[in-house]
Amino acid sequence: MATDLPVSPLAPAVFPDMPVIDGVRFASVAAGIKYQNRTDLMLAYLTTGSAIAGVFTRSSTRSAAVLDCEAKIGQPQEGPAAILVNSGNANAFTGKAGFEAVNAITFAVAQKLDVSVERIFTASTGVIGELLDHAIVTRALTPLEAGLTPDGIDKAARAIMTTDTFAKGATEAVEIGGKIVKIAGIAKGSGMIAPDMATMLVYIFTDAQIAQPDLQRMIDDLTKQTFNRITVDSDTSTSDTLICAATGASGVDVAGNTDFRDALYEIMLDLAHQVVRDGEGATKFITVNVTGAASEADAENHARAIANSPLVKTAIAGEDPNWGRIVMAIGKSGAAADRDRLTIRFGDVLVAENGWVASSYTEDQGAEAMKAPEIDIHVDLGLGQADATVWTCDLTHGYIRINADYRS
Amino acid sequence: MATDLPVSPLAPAVFPDMPVIDGVRFASVAAGIKYQNRTDLMLAYLTTGSAIAGVFTRSSTRSAAVLDCEAKIGQPQEGPAAILVNSGNANAFTGKAGFEAVNAITFAVAQKLDVSVERIFTASTGVIGELLDHAIVTRALTPLEAGLTPDGIDKAARAIMTTDTFAKGATEAVEIGGKIVKIAGIAKGSGMIAPDMATMLVYIFTDAQIAQPDLQRMIDDLTKQTFNRITVDSDTSTSDTLICAATGASGVDVAGNTDFRDALYEIMLDLAHQVVRDGEGATKFITVNVTGAASEADAENHARAIANSPLVKTAIAGEDPNWGRIVMAIGKSGAAADRDRLTIRFGDVLVAENGWVASSYTEDQGAEAMKAPEIDIHVDLGLGQADATVWTCDLTHGYIRINADYRS
Repeated sequence: MATDLPVSPLAPAVFPDMPVIDGVRFASVAAGIKYQNRTDLMLAYLTTGSAIAGVFTRSSTRSAAVLDCEAKIGQPQEGPAAILVNSGNANAFTGKAGFEAVNAITFAVAQKLDVSVERIFTASTGVIGELLDHAIVTRALTPLEAGLTPDGIDKAARAIMTTDTFAKGATEAVEIGGKIVKIAGIAKGSGMIAPDMATMLVYIFTDAQIAQPDLQRMIDDLTKQTFNRITVDSDTSTSDTLICAATGASGVDVAGNTDFRDALYEIMLDLAHQVVRDGEGATKFITVNVTGAASEADAENHARAIANSPLVKTAIAGEDPNWGRIVMAIGKSGAAADRDRLTIRFGDVLVAENGWVASSYTEDQGAEAMKAPEIDIHVDLGLGQADATVWTCDLTHGYIRINADYRS
Repeated sequence: MATDLPVSPLAPAVFPDMPVIDGVRFASVAAGIKYQNRTDLMLAYLTTGSAIAGVFTRSSTRSAAVLDCEAKIGQPQEGPAAILVNSGNANAFTGKAGFEAVNAITFAVAQKLDVSVERIFTASTGVIGELLDHAIVTRALTPLEAGLTPDGIDKAARAIMTTDTFAKGATEAVEIGGKIVKIAGIAKGSGMIAPDMATMLVYIFTDAQIAQPDLQRMIDDLTKQTFNRITVDSDTSTSDTLICAATGASGVDVAGNTDFRDALYEIMLDLAHQVVRDGEGATKFITVNVTGAASEADAENHARAIANSPLVKTAIAGEDPNWGRIVMAIGKSGAAADRDRLTIRFGDVLVAENGWVASSYTEDQGAEAMKAPEIDIHVDLGLGQADATVWTCDLTHGYIRINADYRS
């Protein structure tokens, strides 16, 4: 395990001061699933009537817990609900036994907390292919229940970490009709360290009042612009899960409220960026912004091709203003592009236009732009009005060290 | 420039003993385009009536030389023909001046050799974004013409190298109706080293007699199973070019002859494998074979997802039998898969079946299988009869060193 990794140089300075979200209580314990001397199990208990929406990995080899959650999201939701997450074992690619483990755990939580089994959402993150010993989890339910507290979200953020080098949290407050609606989210990722398929988990809590279908639609849309627009190494996990729970405790109806939606967007974007900032071996946070595309899909394809290109990512790791590799990535994306209409900028520096390097461009300008820890790549295609942004990090010796040199 | 790189540990022991192909003469010179103390320009002169077929990069930002060749392939072909390739400068993303350089060069070659300009095929490989000084090239035409010799193919293989660590050649002979048909091919790639977009060039010569449309169809098909089934880092170049020229000098008509087709396939596969063996930083040659797919496209998608996965490639670099990452790659490919029907093997070692690790599998078996320099990954999907194979190499510190640490 690589939990002794140094904290990412791109980590935020501090973990945010997280508010209490009325209607949610949290508990964390050290159950000893795999890690020693740290918490590895977190429980969130949600008040009666909470709306629960979710977005999951599209992997065709997704884990038993993901399949179980998917089946429950969108079903009639009444009474209280619970979220249980373990780290250290992903319970993925564990065959029939994997489903049995999920069933045993959700059944035990339902019994213990007197919550319908249809309202129990679990996730497992950590080693793939090893059976999750569900007795270790169910034995811990007594101390978990005893420890439930409204201000436990910080500890929950730490309990879901695997090879993350920092805990990830974000919070917003919105004033609506003289009342305050609060949102707080935590995430883990994107360490996918051997033999882990640890990957991304996101839990967002709010005291807003909103019907489940409205909340689901909102997070579906916002995921497309946030978590689906980040990439560390183009690999996709078997366990990616985002759950958003609205307790309604504020009494403020937020259906159709754009301030609430904007605040939720900010939290999701902030957490998505934190996942990239904890990308394995990352030393640069890279924003790839493509404008002037014929369609948003084209803009996203180009941005993704640039953000996933090993040659672009290694150039940035080497602080090399290698714009030729950006031209290459645009060329390979499959989306519409006209080489002679491309404009490429590194931050404020105009690099290329009219199918060639800009006459004003000097290598010194480019080299200077590459020195910052945050790199902005802007490509204008000159073809239309659509745009898209994708965020990524560089590809360094640190990535190879973590993924090739560490052994299980 | 990284031309002082050590020879790849996966390089073939020797360069093959190449035959003379009747109807082709070669010359190489050191024109001084960029490199010092080595050849950087090669000319192949093809006898009257040679059939010329070509396959090119699908990049939307492809170079002026590629666009020029594409336009000429398939046009009525009469009289002699010529191929001129320079290394050191890719003449890619050089705007209008790039087209002017190609025109100046093809016109000069046509004049010098008394060949129709429609029958001159050029390629440029090396630095991207720098204008190719065509006068350096055209000045070298006199010594090139003087040096034309039937046995110059070995030297031609070296003249087209950029950051290759070894010259690449392959040859076959086929007996048809008591006569011998010879084929000889050379290639360069896949060094795409900063600031080069050097990439893949392939030239194959044969004395077979075949009409251009038949030859074109044959190399279109065979490219799909050879050069389009290899990947080093999933990036696509602006300059990839494969040209196959049949002089007809043997007098043997090979249209529809499967022995000839098989021999051409062997040469293309051999050269494609050599390109992978010279992949940047490669220490393992990896064969990914997917069987039991519903369609060949599905099999290829899965094989490509595995072969392009940074997590799979780094695991192999670390000799880690991390089969969980193979499950992950299959899951993300987008093609049909049923987790519980997957069978995964490393060489002869059965790793996983029925949605879980095989009961007979031990980590020691897996670790032993990973020690070889040639790694076979076999995935059976259990869904149908289609299959596909993709070849790749591992992802190592060497790749990062070459692409991030070397500077222009």
